[in-house]
Amino acid sequence: MESLEKLLRPHSVAIIGASADTAKLTGRPLAYLEKYGFIGAVYPVNPRYQTIGSHRCYPEIAALPQPPDVAIVLIGGTKVADAVRQLADVGTSAAIVLASGFGESGPEGRARQDELKRAAGAMRLLGPNTIGLVNVSERIVLSASNALVTDEIIAGNIALVSQSGGILGSLLSRAQAAGIGFSKLIATGNECDLEVADFVDYLVDDANTKVIALYLEGLRKPKAFQAAVMRAHAAGKPVVAFKVGRSEPGARSAVSHTGALAGSDAAYDAMFRQFGVIRAERYSDLLDVPLALSRARALKGNRVAIITSTGGSASLLADAAGVAGLATPPPDEATAAKLKAMAIDGATLDRNPIDVTLAGVKSDTFRAILGLVSASPSYDAVAVVLGSSALREPETVGAPLRECAETTDKPVVGFVSPDAPQLVRTLNLAGVPTFPAPESCAGALAALRRSSEGIKIECAGKAPPGAVADDVTSLLKPGALNEAESKRLFAHFGIPVTREVIAKTPAEAEAVAKTFGGNIVVKVLSREVLHKSEAGGVAVNIAPQAAACVCAQMAERFVAATQHKPEGFLVQELVAGGVELILGFQHDAQLGPVILLGMGGIAAELLHDTALRIAPLSRCDAKEMIDQLKTVALLKGFRGRPVADIEALTDAIVAFSNMVASIGSELQEAEINPLFVLPQGRGVVAADGVVVVKAPQRISRLR
Amino acid sequence: MESLEKLLRPHSVAIIGASADTAKLTGRPLAYLEKYGFIGAVYPVNPRYQTIGSHRCYPEIAALPQPPDVAIVLIGGTKVADAVRQLADVGTSAAIVLASGFGESGPEGRARQDELKRAAGAMRLLGPNTIGLVNVSERIVLSASNALVTDEIIAGNIALVSQSGGILGSLLSRAQAAGIGFSKLIATGNECDLEVADFVDYLVDDANTKVIALYLEGLRKPKAFQAAVMRAHAAGKPVVAFKVGRSEPGARSAVSHTGALAGSDAAYDAMFRQFGVIRAERYSDLLDVPLALSRARALKGNRVAIITSTGGSASLLADAAGVAGLATPPPDEATAAKLKAMAIDGATLDRNPIDVTLAGVKSDTFRAILGLVSASPSYDAVAVVLGSSALREPETVGAPLRECAETTDKPVVGFVSPDAPQLVRTLNLAGVPTFPAPESCAGALAALRRSSEGIKIECAGKAPPGAVADDVTSLLKPGALNEAESKRLFAHFGIPVTREVIAKTPAEAEAVAKTFGGNIVVKVLSREVLHKSEAGGVAVNIAPQAAACVCAQMAERFVAATQHKPEGFLVQELVAGGVELILGFQHDAQLGPVILLGMGGIAAELLHDTALRIAPLSRCDAKEMIDQLKTVALLKGFRGRPVADIEALTDAIVAFSNMVASIGSELQEAEINPLFVLPQGRGVVAADGVVVVKAPQRISRLR
Repeated sequence: MESLEKLLRPHSVAIIGASADTAKLTGRPLAYLEKYGFIGAVYPVNPRYQTIGSHRCYPEIAALPQPPDVAIVLIGGTKVADAVRQLADVGTSAAIVLASGFGESGPEGRARQDELKRAAGAMRLLGPNTIGLVNVSERIVLSASNALVTDEIIAGNIALVSQSGGILGSLLSRAQAAGIGFSKLIATGNECDLEVADFVDYLVDDANTKVIALYLEGLRKPKAFQAAVMRAHAAGKPVVAFKVGRSEPGARSAVSHTGALAGSDAAYDAMFRQFGVIRAERYSDLLDVPLALSRARALKGNRVAIITSTGGSASLLADAAGVAGLATPPPDEATAAKLKAMAIDGATLDRNPIDVTLAGVKSDTFRAILGLVSASPSYDAVAVVLGSSALREPETVGAPLRECAETTDKPVVGFVSPDAPQLVRTLNLAGVPTFPAPESCAGALAALRRSSEGIKIECAGKAPPGAVADDVTSLLKPGALNEAESKRLFAHFGIPVTREVIAKTPAEAEAVAKTFGGNIVVKVLSREVLHKSEAGGVAVNIAPQAAACVCAQMAERFVAATQHKPEGFLVQELVAGGVELILGFQHDAQLGPVILLGMGGIAAELLHDTALRIAPLSRCDAKEMIDQLKTVALLKGFRGRPVADIEALTDAIVAFSNMVASIGSELQEAEINPLFVLPQGRGVVAADGVVVVKAPQRISRLR
Repeated sequence: MESLEKLLRPHSVAIIGASADTAKLTGRPLAYLEKYGFIGAVYPVNPRYQTIGSHRCYPEIAALPQPPDVAIVLIGGTKVADAVRQLADVGTSAAIVLASGFGESGPEGRARQDELKRAAGAMRLLGPNTIGLVNVSERIVLSASNALVTDEIIAGNIALVSQSGGILGSLLSRAQAAGIGFSKLIATGNECDLEVADFVDYLVDDANTKVIALYLEGLRKPKAFQAAVMRAHAAGKPVVAFKVGRSEPGARSAVSHTGALAGSDAAYDAMFRQFGVIRAERYSDLLDVPLALSRARALKGNRVAIITSTGGSASLLADAAGVAGLATPPPDEATAAKLKAMAIDGATLDRNPIDVTLAGVKSDTFRAILGLVSASPSYDAVAVVLGSSALREPETVGAPLRECAETTDKPVVGFVSPDAPQLVRTLNLAGVPTFPAPESCAGALAALRRSSEGIKIECAGKAPPGAVADDVTSLLKPGALNEAESKRLFAHFGIPVTREVIAKTPAEAEAVAKTFGGNIVVKVLSREVLHKSEAGGVAVNIAPQAAACVCAQMAERFVAATQHKPEGFLVQELVAGGVELILGFQHDAQLGPVILLGMGGIAAELLHDTALRIAPLSRCDAKEMIDQLKTVALLKGFRGRPVADIEALTDAIVAFSNMVASIGSELQEAEINPLFVLPQGRGVVAADGVVVVKAPQRISRLR
């Protein structure tokens, strides 16, 4: 943490390979430090100069007068690792390596990157393949990027961490134009050492940062990221992320870009949901949503007053607001009466949008209207539509708007309908979040609403209740377990399974079946064939006295279909009257074990009605998963059916998650299908399932 | 049509209420005509002036030297109708009425609007409550709007028709900034006479228009609109529409804005789909999609090459392309080899995005790369990502890009990643459709792809096969029909229904049941109670010998539940083995009869899996409807079930649509639920249904 503090707030900066030519990339870092008035020590290192500007230039790293807090490494190729090693040797806290050609460029590059990491030792590294960072709040630029050849960077309270330098530059350019300010700008590049999670964690404690915005291609340490996000929530700082990889072309492109591993987008989406990260759906949302959140004024309900002088554009905003789940009720009677008393010609003031018409576009009138509407108990937020009249006389509406935004405790936002980037910029700079697209305005308000409702911290990421830690080695063996073995494992972790008995022969099966007191299910037992129903290895609702005959026939069919001899037969109670679900897990390449809950049955399967969560799960996570199912109504007493035992289902999901977490990476595959959820009070029953264990199966950490 | 031609291409324009003060609204139309060099006759009318500028001013309409082609009516209040009457009297072709306070402002306003319409007689009217129109191609401005106080309006081949003047101004402002040109700009306002459909129809024959863009709040004559759109397709002109009202607040706002009726958004969405209108989802799409289409170069497949010098921004575009259904395959081997032979330092040229890196941002290199990629058989379109380097040297990439766009027959588009409105504008003006958002770029390409595939003209809007035109009066009577009557009506229109017999008493029911040769269904007959199963009035799978007993019990339960005595009993064949669907119709307030097809059964009902189409339907429409169902797989042999008789289902949908069209507005409600679709070759069976007929039921036009 101390190293990060020094990286972002250095007192001394060494520039390795600095040049006196400010037109060159190697001349820029020094020029930027000077332009923004860096007051610490600056140590250019280059054997070709005695001085650069007013600075003494050092011939080599070993000659530095003291260990620098940060070194910007501008040299490239094979010399990078040497420079990094020397920097570490003199006790540098952190180095920023700009050069590319490492992890992102194939096996050789990856080897070079590993060498770099070794060379750094205890010194922290930002990069390689980064454009560096800017501490905007304290005017410290540690970068050589052209993207920072700009006007003064606007200071604000949004921290942006990007895994792509190009995107950082693109967003900075867009934000500058729109009047959106930043506290910190950090490009993490290849993340050979420091990565997004480290900076999120740092920014939680940064007094100048209120909102954390992230551009992600893929997370290298998802658990650290989740922990940092949880800290951010506890500190009341929302985290907004745009993640590429929603489609295969995007995922592929990101992989080749910074060498990130492709995780499944569905798993990322689940993680964002679970940990309360607001996902920016469109690129522009990555600025627009933080913009709305950065004002840090809570949106306490979903009722928005739209004030306009132009009908059509107000309809756009009202429509987008409705689509985003916001309400636009008319003003309450008292407010409507006061508005009407203003007697504005042609204005309709008892509806919403509240159309003041051009006649209402006078500063005093507008000020009075804004005052009345923002004070009305009917509204939680005020959105003002700025039409072409606002263009010609921006202050007529602008001044009252700013005043209102300063005095009310409700969020006040603007939507500018014509092309008027200057007006958008002016209002944003004045602290009124203003948007050029109606959908962005409504979407940002909706995100503010979600954020204001608060993240259920008790839900996300909480350790599950008492993971079973005793020895399960005896229950695991490499390869596929048969159904009976799989269910013993489930049962061990507390998931109820069907009452069942293994029979060696058809005759034994019949004898056993007669003890069940009713019709039964018989199945072949096999480790070789995981999908036994497709191979004719399952028979349901069999009279006990027919069990032997059915088993014999079944075995014959099974051998014919699979060339595998059954290990025996499973005689099982018949479960009826429940709702069928699927409970399974997937191992995501980036995010690790992901729990899947899906509705079973034909129609629901057709719709791929599933919910995902990152393991381990809390009960709250499990309940949210259930509620996320599109067909959840089937569990809640749909059309007179009995209400299902949702508490027991919650228990089963948590137990399954505990099992996955306890067994760890040895678990290759696990699925309960179907899991019958019985009517309330009657619990759940795992009726079938499969487990595949990797070799070696030694579960050392459970001992 | 001639009047419209005169309205859009007038040789003489009268300005009623013209002023010499160009700072006033009433001074603007004349100023605009002069600014844009109108060469026809201009007749200001105002008793207070002898001349305005170089023009003779007329004291009254009756004094005009000849009937003008167009009159712009600038006066307001009660004098409007008089002026309109006088204009009609002197033989004016068309009048544009700017004043508001008509149909949009309550019952009194509506009465004034009706008076206006009567006053106009045979003269065509644009407005009231309009800002007028601009024939950009021929530089004729017929407007008093401030929104046109702008630089020279850019001429192009997109015609924009808007039901809101404010939106027209907003879009013009955005288009001007982005370098997007128009052929015509038309604000239709309250549409007291001329409306969107008239202008779409006109624009089909306008040589300067290639794409028709529409801002809609609600259609007054949907049939005329549909016919005009069909003509546009036949002429190869795509129609793009943004329609507010996707949410209740938007619909409500639009209603109060121009007095449009609110139709259901789902019905509009169905109509757009059915008639091949491309729906702009976001406001910005209403410019971006026409922009892509206006180049009128077909996108023959979905494979897009992305050429970039900046990795992150290319990932954004690749991701958005994937989400939009486009493919981004790597270059074919021959092309990749040629690209690699260029040996650009650090560039990865055998993947897609094709990253030329900063080293590739040289005009000759970029020209060569564009040439190779656009000629590659692997690609149907080329998208170029412009990063910050393009900002500093726009021509380095810009010149080769324009050249490529001119020489290749594939679409070439740009995505600008930093904020660079000037670069977007320059490229658009040069004919390379260029977008500031990755999603817009990808979305516009996807819309171009759909448009290039062509509209299935044989599908949309085609008259259905032989509507049954004989007299159905005997089958209709006011109020609800009972099930047997409803099904006789369905059968009359060719929809197979269950074999069934009406029995007066339980005993008669049993006697009849025994003739069916198997278990049967019995139901109570009632016109009073439409939902008889909820009232215990349906029993399924009854043995014939139990029919009397079941009927008696059922009647008792039914009376207890509803206080209505059954009219009798319906003894019905038992249908098994089919897929249950719902076939019904809704009367949309704007679009008229809408046919609804929905999947039946519990899980599907839970998901509201329905498809809508505007009646009447062709077979092709019906098939598209079936394919639109999310659970259509249930009909196509899902999980080893038999394939359902989709041909028969298609027949039934068309027959149902014919029934709805034939009966017309007398039909208040009609629904078949369930419609069983049996396995292939076995047809469909309507197993239950309801029809409600309005009084009077005289079906005169069928005679």
